Amino acid sequence: MKVGVLNVTGYAGVELARLLSRHPEVRALAVTGRSEVGKRLDEVFPSLSGLDLPILPTLPEDVEVVFSGLPHKASAEALLPFIDRGVPVIDLAADFRLRDPAEYQRWYQVTPPRPELLAEAVYGLTELHRNRIAGARLVANPGCYPTAALLAVLPAVAGGLVKPDLIVDAKSGISGGGRSLSLANHYSEVNENVAPYGLAGHRHLPEIIQELVPFAEATPTVTFIPHLVPMTRGILASCYLPLADTVEADPLRLQSQVTDLYHAWYDKEPFVFVTTGPPATKATFGSNRALVYPTVDGRARRLLVFAAIDNLVKGAAGQAIQNLNVMCGWPETLGLDLLPVYP
Amino acid sequence: MKVGVLNVTGYAGVELARLLSRHPEVRALAVTGRSEVGKRLDEVFPSLSGLDLPILPTLPEDVEVVFSGLPHKASAEALLPFIDRGVPVIDLAADFRLRDPAEYQRWYQVTPPRPELLAEAVYGLTELHRNRIAGARLVANPGCYPTAALLAVLPAVAGGLVKPDLIVDAKSGISGGGRSLSLANHYSEVNENVAPYGLAGHRHLPEIIQELVPFAEATPTVTFIPHLVPMTRGILASCYLPLADTVEADPLRLQSQVTDLYHAWYDKEPFVFVTTGPPATKATFGSNRALVYPTVDGRARRLLVFAAIDNLVKGAAGQAIQNLNVMCGWPETLGLDLLPVYP
Amino acid sequence: MKVGVLNVTGYAGVELARLLSRHPEVRALAVTGRSEVGKRLDEVFPSLSGLDLPILPTLPEDVEVVFSGLPHKASAEALLPFIDRGVPVIDLAADFRLRDPAEYQRWYQVTPPRPELLAEAVYGLTELHRNRIAGARLVANPGCYPTAALLAVLPAVAGGLVKPDLIVDAKSGISGGGRSLSLANHYSEVNENVAPYGLAGHRHLPEIIQELVPFAEATPTVTFIPHLVPMTRGILASCYLPLADTVEADPLRLQSQVTDLYHAWYDKEPFVFVTTGPPATKATFGSNRALVYPTVDGRARRLLVFAAIDNLVKGAAGQAIQNLNVMCGWPETLGLDLLPVYP
Amino acid sequence: MKVGVLNVTGYAGVELARLLSRHPEVRALAVTGRSEVGKRLDEVFPSLSGLDLPILPTLPEDVEVVFSGLPHKASAEALLPFIDRGVPVIDLAADFRLRDPAEYQRWYQVTPPRPELLAEAVYGLTELHRNRIAGARLVANPGCYPTAALLAVLPAVAGGLVKPDLIVDAKSGISGGGRSLSLANHYSEVNENVAPYGLAGHRHLPEIIQELVPFAEATPTVTFIPHLVPMTRGILASCYLPLADTVEADPLRLQSQVTDLYHAWYDKEPFVFVTTGPPATKATFGSNRALVYPTVDGRARRLLVFAAIDNLVKGAAGQAIQNLNVMCGWPETLGLDLLPVYP
Repeated sequence: MKVGVLNVTGYAGVELARLLSRHPEVRALAVTGRSEVGKRLDEVFPSLSGLDLPILPTLPEDVEVVFSGLPHKASAEALLPFIDRGVPVIDLAADFRLRDPAEYQRWYQVTPPRPELLAEAVYGLTELHRNRIAGARLVANPGCYPTAALLAVLPAVAGGLVKPDLIVDAKSGISGGGRSLSLANHYSEVNENVAPYGLAGHRHLPEIIQELVPFAEATPTVTFIPHLVPMTRGILASCYLPLADTVEADPLRLQSQVTDLYHAWYDKEPFVFVTTGPPATKATFGSNRALVYPTVDGRARRLLVFAAIDNLVKGAAGQAIQNLNVMCGWPETLGLDLLPVYP
Repeated sequence: MKVGVLNVTGYAGVELARLLSRHPEVRALAVTGRSEVGKRLDEVFPSLSGLDLPILPTLPEDVEVVFSGLPHKASAEALLPFIDRGVPVIDLAADFRLRDPAEYQRWYQVTPPRPELLAEAVYGLTELHRNRIAGARLVANPGCYPTAALLAVLPAVAGGLVKPDLIVDAKSGISGGGRSLSLANHYSEVNENVAPYGLAGHRHLPEIIQELVPFAEATPTVTFIPHLVPMTRGILASCYLPLADTVEADPLRLQSQVTDLYHAWYDKEPFVFVTTGPPATKATFGSNRALVYPTVDGRARRLLVFAAIDNLVKGAAGQAIQNLNVMCGWPETLGLDLLPVYP
Repeated sequence: MKVGVLNVTGYAGVELARLLSRHPEVRALAVTGRSEVGKRLDEVFPSLSGLDLPILPTLPEDVEVVFSGLPHKASAEALLPFIDRGVPVIDLAADFRLRDPAEYQRWYQVTPPRPELLAEAVYGLTELHRNRIAGARLVANPGCYPTAALLAVLPAVAGGLVKPDLIVDAKSGISGGGRSLSLANHYSEVNENVAPYGLAGHRHLPEIIQELVPFAEATPTVTFIPHLVPMTRGILASCYLPLADTVEADPLRLQSQVTDLYHAWYDKEPFVFVTTGPPATKATFGSNRALVYPTVDGRARRLLVFAAIDNLVKGAAGQAIQNLNVMCGWPETLGLDLLPVYP
Repeated sequence: MKVGVLNVTGYAGVELARLLSRHPEVRALAVTGRSEVGKRLDEVFPSLSGLDLPILPTLPEDVEVVFSGLPHKASAEALLPFIDRGVPVIDLAADFRLRDPAEYQRWYQVTPPRPELLAEAVYGLTELHRNRIAGARLVANPGCYPTAALLAVLPAVAGGLVKPDLIVDAKSGISGGGRSLSLANHYSEVNENVAPYGLAGHRHLPEIIQELVPFAEATPTVTFIPHLVPMTRGILASCYLPLADTVEADPLRLQSQVTDLYHAWYDKEPFVFVTTGPPATKATFGSNRALVYPTVDGRARRLLVFAAIDNLVKGAAGQAIQNLNVMCGWPETLGLDLLPVYP
């Protein structure tokens, strides 16, 4: 298959290049960049030494699938011609994630480019929408934070174990902010530092709510607070939910039920592991894996669920390729069967 | 004044040495170590080059105040002789923090050495118990996490703005785990990694509850989850509390009330600053400062409060010296008037 | 092939497990540990979740090749029975690296276990000894520092461009010190810190000299100073050599000759890349690649050569597998065709 | 004294503010910024909370001394009016460091603004030029790298122990590159990474040579290669020099002579410590201290000298204040008597 990547020079883009260039079904790769057009990819990224690909201004006509690593708005604009020609696309930006155009408008201050496409787009949390992704032409790859948060809480919410009143305290590595320059990724500012951000409302919040709604008895109340921590990759979502009034009173028995429920959801998943102790982002580094750990706080009658992912893999490029595999009917782990790099 | 420090070779101890050796009222310093006895302090810690102090096996008789940087149990045992002789002591360990001996026994699996002292000991959160510290002989310096969490939530709880149902998601630098060796402070294990720990119940939890009780209408429900983040110093406590039913409904007006309340609590405090945006641990590095930022989540009807401190200064050695200053009637900032090291 | 790994619980061992478990020719893997015997490998290392391997006390009889991640002395002792039975072995420790038993004795204070084996052992710098490795039964995998230093300077020394008077200023990530606990890998001690070590003579020095001797006109004089830098993985060897008196006087023409020479040495190598600018360790992270950059200092009439590798891959486990591939006549990149993880 | 700081919003500037605001002889502080004019200093830098200083467009007329944290060229331009009015100035940029205008032109591609001032300017390595600084009106504060390198090698060069053929392999934290944004300080690019830079010739090289010339028998040959390491603060200069032919042949006796020589140079210095083992940058963090460690490599007949400083303190703002103290006849440690922050 000939695969196109729009904006290979961002972190999601270069991660797509790393993974796609070793994907057994990818015969050819064509990449564009917003900067660096005309250079070889490995001139810009020495980690890709040997990958002799020119950075093009636009994709050739004959690409058979397109990934977009562009920012929102620019992404939809660049993808529309391919969508119109029937080329399957996987958008790593936010343009097709929210089904309600008004909601998109509210959070992104951008008019949705083609609202009728929103109904067709499939939210690409593979574990949740695998069946619809299989036949999709337009996949909206989830945000990194929603991937972690949803994998953490969906079983509990869907299983009725908790009230849909969710606090997500998320910790992210700095690469989540992209390759563009800002004080928020200046080494000396963020090293040896932890701070929350996005307190007025982060744009990943409506995604989380949208995907929980079908599983919740009432509209979910969600407080989502991201924090920057001094590491390059990784997200840990620490989720706090009140236990439903109807659940088992004994914490130990409840813990056992919860663990069983999570195993029932995830044991057949190739990339999601229910752990036996607190998960660490390091145990996902460089891989498409998610580690999920639910635990009952008997004192406070809360369920705590922790999920760890690599924000650039399961949180971006890896899940996008996982979706490609599903769309093409290939084994879901094709090209993604990498173990995390530890330590 | 001649000051003694028990166990100068732990991180709290060496931080006491750094600060006390420049304290204008400290005429002489005597230090002990559990290891390294007989060496000069600056042989063990080259950062203290020039500080020509021997590490003693025991403190001399004529010390006029004693700080203990020993672990719990060992700390009380070493301090009792001084307490009995009427020498004022400041214990940085947990032995005298909990007023209920049964609670201490439950969390530490140690029989309290002299339960009658628990009633006399003052919990050394200076901002809360300044008056009692002024006349105290035995100060139990707070844990690092409770210092951050209590400074964050006390005004809101005492002001009745929130229900006493608290989630504290805390992020700590690695130095909080001390200088002893373990996989939890092995560089390659914790670098580029974030993970929660202490999920079954961290020993700092009962301190937080104990100090909130007098201010809460009902027994507080507290979920406290610490996380290790890859930095040396710093704690950020992210606190989530449900708004009381009676508070102002309009989020903007409520935010204004909350801000006013926090300023009323803290504007006269020399070390606590109410910030105008999300606080960063880096802005406290090396200093005795606490930064506190309360913000209303109008969507979820919650109050969020973030507090940042340096765990080894305001969270340990600095607050201990702040308490010494109060005990001695000196200006509270004496020897502590250092600005944070940034960047 | 059924492969055995001795001491999988050190960093070289767990890296062997990561790579061998995805190696197309490795049918079965058996692993031992000095600690953690009886546990599943992924209980100890959650990054290997899904790798359902017991940690054995000893390797089964039917392993067809053995890697040892044991420390020196213990490594030779454990390998001897396999060597005696004719099972090919690859030793990641130092026991068979030095051909002169007296030299080994001097640097390691250990009597070589079976000196006659030293003549048979092949020093496993694949690029240098590929032909002899192809038929070897006993490969002594090089130290991480010598791998970087030798790849950097061999072409220049062998090409007579420089005098054999070498300064190697090496910078290593902390994982090079292993998984055992020490102050030298305590996070708070090594984070935000750079320091040299091994000033009295590091054990990797004689390896460097031994491998240079055949290429140098005179016995090489080598100053080798390693430094610890606050990162987990990576070695950068910065090498400084005086230009030979006979070389081209014009720096630009000389630079061109040097670049050509290095390309001639390395362009057919699958893992060594001659870069066009200063190499960064990050561009090798998690991969078996080496980046080499020679540059002429015309002012001081010196050749500077910089080499970057991942100390746990090309500096240990990866090169060991590269040697396995050569020993077995497989494509040299089998199981090692991973791109570096960037950023 | 009323002190002015030009460009407080760079890292050298904000470090000047941190230190000067606690300096006992500084009665008032006025600061300018290239950005952020009109804001309070502590709005921009929360680490300075409580420092209620406006960021001015220009300094008031009545400042009695001026520090400049501006970049070169802009610095000289802004300082000239003060110099012409006879106000003493301390320039942290490079404009007055090189006495030879042609050399300045060559390295900085800028015409020196007022060449006659170069003869008057004193190179502000306090330990070297203390007497001339005492009466100076114009002090050119040294670069961070030259400070470390010169403190390391001056005693050996001046003492004739070595040939003036110097290799300086320097490792710097990222803050040395300033607060302006670039890929070279983007967290994800420089974290978990080590790389050399400035291979074609770093601008600090001519400073090093200039200051060595008076002490060397011949024109010094210097190879100076800086490296970026993933930490915020700190410089380690690793210096390699050939022993002079005339020195003592026995390494142990020579080591003793070298150590004595360094102690003779530095024992009366308040900020320079000759250490007994390899120095670590961490042991200088946040302080004006320099640690120097000379050691003989008997095998290779070289002298190795390592020097560690905090690049923003002894390498910039701290040394500038040390020079102010000397200029004013105050105790040299005034306002600088801070111990390093460890760990």
